[in-house]
Amino acid sequence: MKQKIAVLGAGSWGTALALVLNENKHDVTLWSHHPAQIKEINEEHTNTHYLSDIKLPENLKATENLKECVADADAVLFVVPTKAMREVAHKFSEVCENKPVIIHASKGLEQVSHKRISDVLKEEITPEHRQDVVVLSGPSHAEEVAVKDVTTITAACENHSSAQYVQELFSNRYFRVYTNQDVIGVEMGAALKNIIALGSGALHGLGYGDNARAAIMTRGLAEISRLGVAMGADPLTFIGLSGVGDLEVTCNSVHSRNWRTGNLLGQGQDLDTVLENMGMIVEGVATTKAAYELAEERKIEMPITEAIYRVLYNGEKIASVIEETMLRDYKSEQEF
Amino acid sequence: MKQKIAVLGAGSWGTALALVLNENKHDVTLWSHHPAQIKEINEEHTNTHYLSDIKLPENLKATENLKECVADADAVLFVVPTKAMREVAHKFSEVCENKPVIIHASKGLEQVSHKRISDVLKEEITPEHRQDVVVLSGPSHAEEVAVKDVTTITAACENHSSAQYVQELFSNRYFRVYTNQDVIGVEMGAALKNIIALGSGALHGLGYGDNARAAIMTRGLAEISRLGVAMGADPLTFIGLSGVGDLEVTCNSVHSRNWRTGNLLGQGQDLDTVLENMGMIVEGVATTKAAYELAEERKIEMPITEAIYRVLYNGEKIASVIEETMLRDYKSEQEF
Repeated sequence: MKQKIAVLGAGSWGTALALVLNENKHDVTLWSHHPAQIKEINEEHTNTHYLSDIKLPENLKATENLKECVADADAVLFVVPTKAMREVAHKFSEVCENKPVIIHASKGLEQVSHKRISDVLKEEITPEHRQDVVVLSGPSHAEEVAVKDVTTITAACENHSSAQYVQELFSNRYFRVYTNQDVIGVEMGAALKNIIALGSGALHGLGYGDNARAAIMTRGLAEISRLGVAMGADPLTFIGLSGVGDLEVTCNSVHSRNWRTGNLLGQGQDLDTVLENMGMIVEGVATTKAAYELAEERKIEMPITEAIYRVLYNGEKIASVIEETMLRDYKSEQEF
Repeated sequence: MKQKIAVLGAGSWGTALALVLNENKHDVTLWSHHPAQIKEINEEHTNTHYLSDIKLPENLKATENLKECVADADAVLFVVPTKAMREVAHKFSEVCENKPVIIHASKGLEQVSHKRISDVLKEEITPEHRQDVVVLSGPSHAEEVAVKDVTTITAACENHSSAQYVQELFSNRYFRVYTNQDVIGVEMGAALKNIIALGSGALHGLGYGDNARAAIMTRGLAEISRLGVAMGADPLTFIGLSGVGDLEVTCNSVHSRNWRTGNLLGQGQDLDTVLENMGMIVEGVATTKAAYELAEERKIEMPITEAIYRVLYNGEKIASVIEETMLRDYKSEQEF
């Protein structure tokens, strides 16, 4: 059944997901706070800064007016950067007059509080203004979704019927949505994999090969699982789309901003220059800090996260920190 | 302590492992049954068909004489193609006069019997002529090991001290060996990942993107784990080096013959032509048949293996079989 859906955030992922919903004949409106971008979407039917070669359908509209965007919405998809999530959720709560399903597709952890995004949303949006919060996450470059390449993704919610609702909203021939009830695991996998992508990019930039990349991904998955399980996740989630799948797509591709950032750092550029030139949010940088602090607090060993933290926040030399991490002494696989 | 080690098989992996052992100051002899190759290794100090740009050390010798090669050996490393394993083990058993540690680094399952390689070795080599059988396996392109890129790998044996012996033999600054006691899991992961690599290559050849590759790898890992666990493996092994790690390195790289084979099939070449031009054994082709039959026998769902089997052995069209598999209907991640 045709649904009215507000997509809050018109970056590459928000726009790609809006395209899927539009393809599925839903009534979709994008919200952005950049007037020039809104004008471009509505008049030129492009969003060139984020999806350079994509022609948007003419019925996909954008607005700066949050209240108008979410009015009568059956579902509201939050896909703004993690650092803006609480503020946007708060604003939404103030203007919302009905009770939509809340979906989010952002990947990160809140700074200082270290909270997962679904918890931030639940705190800011009172139960009168929402049904369940569903997480949409998985291995997916926005660029490929926008050209209708086959993509598999997870819709996670403790309440299975809400996950199924989101599955039905998004599913089509090329966009394959699977339900999962482990919200903690899906959100932790989504957030933490960006740290490993920074490391994988750094290895490439430093001249390491495929064998080393496989090593950092395997160890990376182990430390993601350790922290995830400590937070209450099901360990099996990490061999699924939000673990192995998402890690795979992020640690191997120039499409990933986190990988590209790591790669440029490995090549010797400094962080500020890299981030300035990227022109989009690199979630892994903030996530590294949150995960490092969480791991400290919970006494979880996360050597790759610690290494990336030392490079990003203590200004240590990337070549020596990475080398030290790669050559760290483990004896058995169980110690990974 | 300096050990005398016979390396049976002078393909790219055998040669790369001999280089590691030579680097570690062991006394290493390669065995091959190709006189021209032996002459090239001994006189030119190269093995160009397998490792084109590598200069071998002058003290790394090759011989056609199996008895001479294994005489007084402390350890014998079998790294011949799976289909030659039983015959070479049998010959070894006839000429062996001492009791070396047996190591193998081949990745496959025996045709018809569907046996793992360590079982084949145990059947052919009587206990008077061997100590434990240790499996060496993990994410490692021979080409990268030969140039001393950082590589992580598993030495697996039920008997931990034998795994430790192999760990000590091979470990050095760039070659990092971890012990594991799950021989079944390590051998099943090593063999089965080549099937998924064929599929991943096929997707690439057919024009699918990174999102689809992540999907086939995630589902592939799930079906590898299902069959592995049914055979007695520890499920956790598949998130380690012989699961995720090995899958990652094989499904992403032109260094992998299995990936290259799948890629060429996806581009429309026929199997015979591809295998003829490859000029080296593509283990995944035979493994697909063994795994398909095992899965039938044990009633394990392995949709990707089945798809590759239908392409390789039933002559079905790769584009339609792969598409059907990618678009197969699952609902929840648990069904993967």
